[in-house]
Amino acid sequence: MRMYDIIKKKRDGGELSTEEIAFFIRGVTDGSIPDYQISALCMAIYFKGMTVRETCDLTFAVRDSGEKLDFSAIAGVRADKHSTGGVGDKTSLVVAPVVASFGVKVAKMSGRGLGHTGGTVDKLESIPGFRTTLSEEEFIGQVNRIGLAIVGQSREFAPADKKLYALRDVTATVDSMPLIAASIMGKKLAADDDCIVLDVKTGSGSFMKSVERSRELARLMVDIGKSAGKKMVALITDMDRPLGYAIGNSLEVIEAVETLKGNGPADFTEVCMILAAYMLSLAGKGSPEACRKLAEGAIADGSALQKFAEMVSAQGGDGELIAHPEKFKQAKCSRAVLSAEEGYIRRADTEAYGLASLALGAGRNTAEDSIDPSAGILLKKKTGDFVRKGEELAVLYSDDPARFAAAEEKLLAATAIGREKPAEEPLVYDVVE
Amino acid sequence: MRMYDIIKKKRDGGELSTEEIAFFIRGVTDGSIPDYQISALCMAIYFKGMTVRETCDLTFAVRDSGEKLDFSAIAGVRADKHSTGGVGDKTSLVVAPVVASFGVKVAKMSGRGLGHTGGTVDKLESIPGFRTTLSEEEFIGQVNRIGLAIVGQSREFAPADKKLYALRDVTATVDSMPLIAASIMGKKLAADDDCIVLDVKTGSGSFMKSVERSRELARLMVDIGKSAGKKMVALITDMDRPLGYAIGNSLEVIEAVETLKGNGPADFTEVCMILAAYMLSLAGKGSPEACRKLAEGAIADGSALQKFAEMVSAQGGDGELIAHPEKFKQAKCSRAVLSAEEGYIRRADTEAYGLASLALGAGRNTAEDSIDPSAGILLKKKTGDFVRKGEELAVLYSDDPARFAAAEEKLLAATAIGREKPAEEPLVYDVVE
Repeated sequence: MRMYDIIKKKRDGGELSTEEIAFFIRGVTDGSIPDYQISALCMAIYFKGMTVRETCDLTFAVRDSGEKLDFSAIAGVRADKHSTGGVGDKTSLVVAPVVASFGVKVAKMSGRGLGHTGGTVDKLESIPGFRTTLSEEEFIGQVNRIGLAIVGQSREFAPADKKLYALRDVTATVDSMPLIAASIMGKKLAADDDCIVLDVKTGSGSFMKSVERSRELARLMVDIGKSAGKKMVALITDMDRPLGYAIGNSLEVIEAVETLKGNGPADFTEVCMILAAYMLSLAGKGSPEACRKLAEGAIADGSALQKFAEMVSAQGGDGELIAHPEKFKQAKCSRAVLSAEEGYIRRADTEAYGLASLALGAGRNTAEDSIDPSAGILLKKKTGDFVRKGEELAVLYSDDPARFAAAEEKLLAATAIGREKPAEEPLVYDVVE
Repeated sequence: MRMYDIIKKKRDGGELSTEEIAFFIRGVTDGSIPDYQISALCMAIYFKGMTVRETCDLTFAVRDSGEKLDFSAIAGVRADKHSTGGVGDKTSLVVAPVVASFGVKVAKMSGRGLGHTGGTVDKLESIPGFRTTLSEEEFIGQVNRIGLAIVGQSREFAPADKKLYALRDVTATVDSMPLIAASIMGKKLAADDDCIVLDVKTGSGSFMKSVERSRELARLMVDIGKSAGKKMVALITDMDRPLGYAIGNSLEVIEAVETLKGNGPADFTEVCMILAAYMLSLAGKGSPEACRKLAEGAIADGSALQKFAEMVSAQGGDGELIAHPEKFKQAKCSRAVLSAEEGYIRRADTEAYGLASLALGAGRNTAEDSIDPSAGILLKKKTGDFVRKGEELAVLYSDDPARFAAAEEKLLAATAIGREKPAEEPLVYDVVE
């Protein structure tokens, strides 16, 4: 088999065989296929696409390119959620304890964030003492004991994806549906869950800017997961506005805790309830509607908050902060961003909000950067809200006041104010089963 | 300027600016752009094409990537022909002396062949003593003195093309019209001719398999040459059959000499006369029709043969062989290939004939291979001829009889015999001015 023939076949619109795709990913992983042939094939795939069968084969080859997790020692049904990433997305912190409070096992490995704000692991590390690195025995033991653990990726899963993504990133071949799906699902399927709920973000704060493209990606990923024997659902949720009001690591943990207490923002609470409902439903707890009621009950009776506190304690975190989130370390400085005009917020470029948060120190530019856990933004107004001239749009937080100017400029430039109230957009666009 | 943005622009169907194309070729030449980005752009160009303006800019950037020839010391009009390559194509050996016999200067730098048979330089080197390496002074001096010199490329022209071609060759991006045109014309324009006649081959023995594609390539190359200030014509000529009956180095020189004596095969003589007519016409010697008569006259009165003999002597070759080509070293062994059936030759895969000749030792598999100058094939029957069972289709020549079996097998497999005489195809499909 020759890589040349594989490139030519795809260039001419042919369907690659399982063997050809396996040959390609083997060569990516062991370095035997040179980068220039990999990037040429990625560009040919960009133009010619892949069938669902090819995309499944590509996903499975990526999954199988490295180590895989074995959760067979975990008793019970294992469910996980995966978000395609967005600004202010702290849903895992709420959804995982809600679901675990019903005995469904949530053994979650999360990545660190690059860009915008941190990832789930970075957020949890803003809780003093919280350990995101557990041995496999500790991890599985904790899941069996309390039903829930969230840790960072200690090993490299799907190394072929890392290599492929690095090349795609510099050759303008990221934006290809089959390559995106294989990248996300190749990593996700290296874990050993029974049920997966995908949260596919759509809008300015996500990498899928249109609902149609998001729906297409969701359909593809659900089909891939099913063909790997998983129970799958994907929700298309809005990322044209930040979710909730907090952007930043400890700020988001505080907002999540408030939500677990029943005091969360309506939009964020709503998305969490729907995600939890589908996870519970896939795990056999009833219809999505019935499970929605279960999830709301776990908030109302405090059992979800209790589960979250158990996890924080089990992983060495300061449980006192969960009971009293006002005790979180505060940023040394803050600055209010005031509106220069009066009117409705017609549009807010969510990605730009994320970049403003990054400028404050809440995220990483490179993998080596450290994060300021208390830096970030608390929004006071969101899309659709009316604002008067001089009224607060947001408050910026950082230990370094020199960072405020750039963040304020980005935030103001990203916020369009006008006379007419914008039409309301749904929070959840679609459910793909 | 970033290569990423250039790839993305082309991927999205944009037109690259002169500066972007210059940046790209500079980066290819100095190695600052990594191979994986070069191949990604080539694949994007494969799918999205280039405008004539972009293709001209690409060609000129390739031309300017290395040294260029300066023919200003040559007195008079300088004309050259360039063939896109075919099997048994020895036209330069006839056309150049015909044209030079009328005082038009032919200062020809030819490449060595890779695959099939050798290039023009390899063919001339089958004449004992013939020197294909001259100093620049010798080369220009000889052209001024006798009007004609044919040498190998002593320096590397258009190094960007070498790098680009090597990458295209392994990433399935050779077959792109603008990339082909820029490759051929970038090198050709590094020489300093006034008039260029392109011989664009079409059919099974060429890399353009259809007349339409050949015409498109010819149009593009003529436009590029004109925009560089050259007088240009392109002929679309047939390469669905080998030209003449000889394939191999000394075998082709002998056939060329016979043609210069007026005893050449009709098809080969015809193509030579047309090419010479257009070169003479571009050089100001009259209409193509009038120049055709001039060319035929140079064969009839022996002046073209005389010019060829002058060149051979000037470059140290054994002039005796030109007068008596039967004195060329003969291959040690020969084998007749007999027809297994009776009928008309309906089709002959010319590329396969070339590969049979390669198998006999007449060409190179790699740049390091040496050539057997007397190896090759003399065809006895060509497409359209009637052959009886057991009659000779061809005679194979090689110093190594172990090579015959593979060559015979290829030749027989490439020859389709049937009951009906095939329709006659034209030798020259079109003239693109």
